[in-house]
Amino acid sequence: MSRSPPRHGLQAMSTPTADSYRAAGVDIDAGNRAVALLAESVVSTRTPNVLSGPGGFGGMYSAAGLGTDSVLVASTDGVGTKAELAGRYGCWRGIGVDLVNHCIGDIVVHGARPLFFLDYIAMGRLEPEVVAEIVAGMADACRGAGCALLGGETAEMPGTYVPEAIDVVGTIVGAARKDRLWPRPEVVRAGDALVGVASSGPHTNGFSLIRRLLDERPAAADADLIEALLVPHRSYLPTVSEMTAAGIEPKALAHITGGGLFDNLPRVLPDRLGARIDLGTWKVPELFARLVDWGGLADSEAFRVWNMGIGLVAVVDEADAEVLGRQGHCVIGSVVDVAAPDAGTVMLEGSWR
Amino acid sequence: MSRSPPRHGLQAMSTPTADSYRAAGVDIDAGNRAVALLAESVVSTRTPNVLSGPGGFGGMYSAAGLGTDSVLVASTDGVGTKAELAGRYGCWRGIGVDLVNHCIGDIVVHGARPLFFLDYIAMGRLEPEVVAEIVAGMADACRGAGCALLGGETAEMPGTYVPEAIDVVGTIVGAARKDRLWPRPEVVRAGDALVGVASSGPHTNGFSLIRRLLDERPAAADADLIEALLVPHRSYLPTVSEMTAAGIEPKALAHITGGGLFDNLPRVLPDRLGARIDLGTWKVPELFARLVDWGGLADSEAFRVWNMGIGLVAVVDEADAEVLGRQGHCVIGSVVDVAAPDAGTVMLEGSWR
Repeated sequence: MSRSPPRHGLQAMSTPTADSYRAAGVDIDAGNRAVALLAESVVSTRTPNVLSGPGGFGGMYSAAGLGTDSVLVASTDGVGTKAELAGRYGCWRGIGVDLVNHCIGDIVVHGARPLFFLDYIAMGRLEPEVVAEIVAGMADACRGAGCALLGGETAEMPGTYVPEAIDVVGTIVGAARKDRLWPRPEVVRAGDALVGVASSGPHTNGFSLIRRLLDERPAAADADLIEALLVPHRSYLPTVSEMTAAGIEPKALAHITGGGLFDNLPRVLPDRLGARIDLGTWKVPELFARLVDWGGLADSEAFRVWNMGIGLVAVVDEADAEVLGRQGHCVIGSVVDVAAPDAGTVMLEGSWR
Repeated sequence: MSRSPPRHGLQAMSTPTADSYRAAGVDIDAGNRAVALLAESVVSTRTPNVLSGPGGFGGMYSAAGLGTDSVLVASTDGVGTKAELAGRYGCWRGIGVDLVNHCIGDIVVHGARPLFFLDYIAMGRLEPEVVAEIVAGMADACRGAGCALLGGETAEMPGTYVPEAIDVVGTIVGAARKDRLWPRPEVVRAGDALVGVASSGPHTNGFSLIRRLLDERPAAADADLIEALLVPHRSYLPTVSEMTAAGIEPKALAHITGGGLFDNLPRVLPDRLGARIDLGTWKVPELFARLVDWGGLADSEAFRVWNMGIGLVAVVDEADAEVLGRQGHCVIGSVVDVAAPDAGTVMLEGSWR
């Protein structure tokens, strides 16, 4: 829902009876300030398809551009506890970018282009400038993807969130052509190449562990490390557009999110086929090496907690793999036969050190 | 995002390295149990338009049924702190119903029918049975509206949520015809009738205050009161369908949510027009009277904190008002001229006692 003033509803705004609500821990004025700060970011993402103005109950987006063979592809997710780490250093804007680009990754792997995005930001004590920064980041990423920030909600919930804590959640809706939906497991064959696309860092995964590792060694948390950890999730929309522009129709694309290569590759592989990952075919960023050493993690663990430098994997034939190689991507392994019920097994070969 | 196993992603599932994650406060096994418990509810909401199975990165919904004159109407919202009160009494299922029907209310007022819904449930300590109950409630409401539960995410975030606390958020996407979008402010006239449709309780609004009032008088919190407070938000989809089936094309519909009649009616009224509410034209449920007395609230406050028994208002001409009267609804006031800049003013006349 989007309440007036513009767009961003506020649970805290459910009454201007400030006395009653302040007593209950809700700050109306802060809510109104946040709303004002948000308007500009939202307007900056407006596209010709957006039919709704501020103050509506729902956001309206024209489906005129969608063909009858269109498929809406939607995903909801949050940034998890990366927000807590970002908060320690006041790096809120990147969290907004993280959220949008993570959601974009979840629909581009199905062949969809982003249409619109809605967000939800909740915290114990509303900090208007923080909300404005996060939404500004969302707007940056939305503009970059031609995605309209169609609606959102900001909730102040004392008693639900620990002081200083904040949760940032979003939903993206995109459109794909029904005859071009990915993955296409029926055409995946043993011997197909697994082409890895670089990540921009841990993205939004494994931060519960990252925070614990940092807390165990406060002296190690220098500015460079924190900056590297908080680098926003990159958008894979341009990457996938470049692939298709080169005439490549991936057999499957996997977004390497929570669960890493181990959990995400099997999601796009058919029965009786697995993946062999050849460690050493790409340079695992130093950042991950430090985290792995600090945690004393085995590869079997590290490659589940973090993406280890690979944020997207394309399953393609050898010829397409060569084209993707020229686009700067790297063959990191191949599809292999496995005996069911071990279908989907991901095997690591060699060493990345 | 929806991670495998079926549909409901879990931040906690971002790694099976239980030792590392348990140390960080995340319980993998509980996450997996929750996922299993959710599958049945989700499948029960499946419609022919749903093209995605479990395990995808995004949910897929065929747009084949949408005409080129279709408009997608979307809204995101949460149940707020009603979840905390429900948790005290273990009444989780109703919270799921609340969330879906609240979101439905936000799009039916624009003339949209629900297509699909995505949810996000987050808490400090994952309780699989609680998540399953909430999603079961969402599924109940989704089935009732022909709405597919297309995706969702469950997040366990120790350090963000206070122990026992939970946040329940959802996003709905519906479709309307471009030539039948509401409100139609250009046709609203002074003298139009305001027809009120009954609410089923406070719905999801004003619970920060409700909880404070209850905490101040523990003895008063008897089973009947709690049950009345927790009655789920009713769905206004059948109500609006009945209106249109009777040939009524509302000039505007307002969902009376946070901010009550005061904040929500002006959202659908044009400049220079306001609303006069004739108190006494409907029976304000006893529940609200008790809350108002406990809080010592003036009408100007009470009608902003709570819906006071009216969950939806239709702006129609006199003739349509009579038809709606025969459908069991009640004229609660009328549209009146106001001098800008006071446009949108809502005036209460008389007494509801």
